[in-house]
Amino acid sequence: MLGEFLENVRKKAPLVHNITNYVTVNDCANILIAAGASPIMTDDLDDAAQITAICAGLNINIGTLNARTLPAMFAAGKRANELSHIVLLDPVGVGASALRTDTAQGLLRELRFDVIRGNSSEIKALALGGGMTKGVDADLADAVTESTLEPAVGFAKEFAQKTGAVVVITGALDIVADGSRACVVSNGHPMMGRITGSGCMLSALLTACAAANPGGVFMSAVAGVCAMGLAGELAFARMSEKDGNASYRNYLIDAVYNLTGSALEAGAKTKWA
Amino acid sequence: MLGEFLENVRKKAPLVHNITNYVTVNDCANILIAAGASPIMTDDLDDAAQITAICAGLNINIGTLNARTLPAMFAAGKRANELSHIVLLDPVGVGASALRTDTAQGLLRELRFDVIRGNSSEIKALALGGGMTKGVDADLADAVTESTLEPAVGFAKEFAQKTGAVVVITGALDIVADGSRACVVSNGHPMMGRITGSGCMLSALLTACAAANPGGVFMSAVAGVCAMGLAGELAFARMSEKDGNASYRNYLIDAVYNLTGSALEAGAKTKWA
Amino acid sequence: MLGEFLENVRKKAPLVHNITNYVTVNDCANILIAAGASPIMTDDLDDAAQITAICAGLNINIGTLNARTLPAMFAAGKRANELSHIVLLDPVGVGASALRTDTAQGLLRELRFDVIRGNSSEIKALALGGGMTKGVDADLADAVTESTLEPAVGFAKEFAQKTGAVVVITGALDIVADGSRACVVSNGHPMMGRITGSGCMLSALLTACAAANPGGVFMSAVAGVCAMGLAGELAFARMSEKDGNASYRNYLIDAVYNLTGSALEAGAKTKWA
Repeated sequence: MLGEFLENVRKKAPLVHNITNYVTVNDCANILIAAGASPIMTDDLDDAAQITAICAGLNINIGTLNARTLPAMFAAGKRANELSHIVLLDPVGVGASALRTDTAQGLLRELRFDVIRGNSSEIKALALGGGMTKGVDADLADAVTESTLEPAVGFAKEFAQKTGAVVVITGALDIVADGSRACVVSNGHPMMGRITGSGCMLSALLTACAAANPGGVFMSAVAGVCAMGLAGELAFARMSEKDGNASYRNYLIDAVYNLTGSALEAGAKTKWA
Repeated sequence: MLGEFLENVRKKAPLVHNITNYVTVNDCANILIAAGASPIMTDDLDDAAQITAICAGLNINIGTLNARTLPAMFAAGKRANELSHIVLLDPVGVGASALRTDTAQGLLRELRFDVIRGNSSEIKALALGGGMTKGVDADLADAVTESTLEPAVGFAKEFAQKTGAVVVITGALDIVADGSRACVVSNGHPMMGRITGSGCMLSALLTACAAANPGGVFMSAVAGVCAMGLAGELAFARMSEKDGNASYRNYLIDAVYNLTGSALEAGAKTKWA
Repeated sequence: MLGEFLENVRKKAPLVHNITNYVTVNDCANILIAAGASPIMTDDLDDAAQITAICAGLNINIGTLNARTLPAMFAAGKRANELSHIVLLDPVGVGASALRTDTAQGLLRELRFDVIRGNSSEIKALALGGGMTKGVDADLADAVTESTLEPAVGFAKEFAQKTGAVVVITGALDIVADGSRACVVSNGHPMMGRITGSGCMLSALLTACAAANPGGVFMSAVAGVCAMGLAGELAFARMSEKDGNASYRNYLIDAVYNLTGSALEAGAKTKWA
């Protein structure tokens, strides 16, 4: 059944609008195509709302937010909300600066998100309204492990309830939660943390998954998280002695490109929590 | 003879100024280098006209146009026109929003382009002054096939006549037209549509080809389109089972890097129309 | 001993703030991760000073400088100076336009740099306050060769003395100089000039090396220059017949990822000058 959610992306080829950072934007575009979706990027106030109207989903990533693109995030988000499009928030580095924290909080207040995805430090900073995020990587102290899983799942569910969004916390263990249920995904590989953009790419992918599976956002997010994690495993398995993180990045996108619904079903490692 | 046009790029190493989108900008830089040209990117109003003056060609791509970069496009374009440099327009997503349509029309009105390159939907939207482009990919209904080739060629010639530019419409079949003649190129591979940036890279390459072949813009465009398409074929032939679109992107640029004039002559599939 | 400087990057994982161009930003992020550092990018005035405060080093690259990001460069630089963080300047294309020259000179006047890295034309233009840089690549006439090495070394030392920075001039031969000593590095491969971003990546890497080796900036720069050059050699050795510059870029980052301190010691080609 998880496989279907992925196959629907390939079948429906949703157009996904990304207002995202310029560091990993190319990887986001290519992973969307790898999954069967179609990317479009625009972050100008005069263009964003109109472009988002022809799309099925909007991925807002604040990785390199700035005075010029902020209004476009709000305008596109409002338009997408009006049209009941899928809207995802990736609050990159929230907690690391006032601008990031204020922006993420403002977006949360003014827009309705279908999915919110971040690492444990980001989601904590976002939910608790402050925090001391150390840049764009999760703080070790915030890492979700087997021993901290239960409170983390409770926290994710609560935040999902409060926001109405499916909350995705990624790390060694990934948590996907809505207000009433949560799924823990143990797919993935530490190598995914050795490239820039794993998180951004997943956010783009989750937007496509949700857009292609209206009415099934929660399970589409589980499918997307499993797909990305499984691709991370397959990409690592493919590495040879001289390969490093640059080749790994390519293998990761390649693995999404070649991932079938049935391979996803066979490889997904989920457990309800 | 087509081979010479490519070899001239390697010989003359033209400096190409790109005002382009941040999604595929790195690929554009690397494909220019692969072809033997030298890329420079700047999109600030205070910098663009002066930088373009030291270049041989200017590639204007509106993929992620915005309020800050728009004036730079016009200023650099005017300066390049004054200096009789090669200027190319890639009207990404024209027809998909008012800003894109107005910008592309404004550029057409105020600047003189040597080459205009887009997919069939973009060129249609540009020529007809409106349109309903679906994002950045061509609408299926606009695709150029054997059965729609004749009217498409006529349309391209007419638009070339009207604008004075060599018009390049890319898709499964590519059309290169000026006011009096047209060449249809059947090189290429569908996999080129499975990465972001095939079109942007071709536009960058065509700017270099024209800049290195003054007085032979039309044939330089035919050579560039054939070179890109042939590289797309060679890149696909190189793919192994686990490769996907990320590896394909690398192979495509690699193939341009290794393409010789004689290989281009041997592999080019052109026919006059 | 050079090996330790590299190992310290892996051990301390310094957070490096990059205000850099959008052409090679992804490569800069990935090479920082490859070396064991952690990248963060932000170029908004409201964000830059606060983000730089949580970092250990700041890499300022003017490759695609613009009206929006210029104030962020100065603000972040001042904050980093106040906090005695490592600050590096990569004056891309200085001399090619008034904006680039004025900006680089302004940064030099108002900020204190630990490291300045550029090609021979850029450093010449920066030091002599004008110049006719031809785009972003070094002018052949400025190239450092065995026969021009002595004056070039003298020039580098003098500029280092004047600015208080470690000056790194890269080319076929690389010079690392402070006010009293200079080291010439002959690692590297011409293929590094056939991709975009070799210089930008080195600047990012040097920022990390210096940040992880406080008190040893000069030797950390020698180590970084050797590491990058050696990676360039290893990447070339790995190329197969169909590989071109795109694959080479990946191999280069991969080689940094896999480079050990002992391999660096064994492969470094330095000589005092």
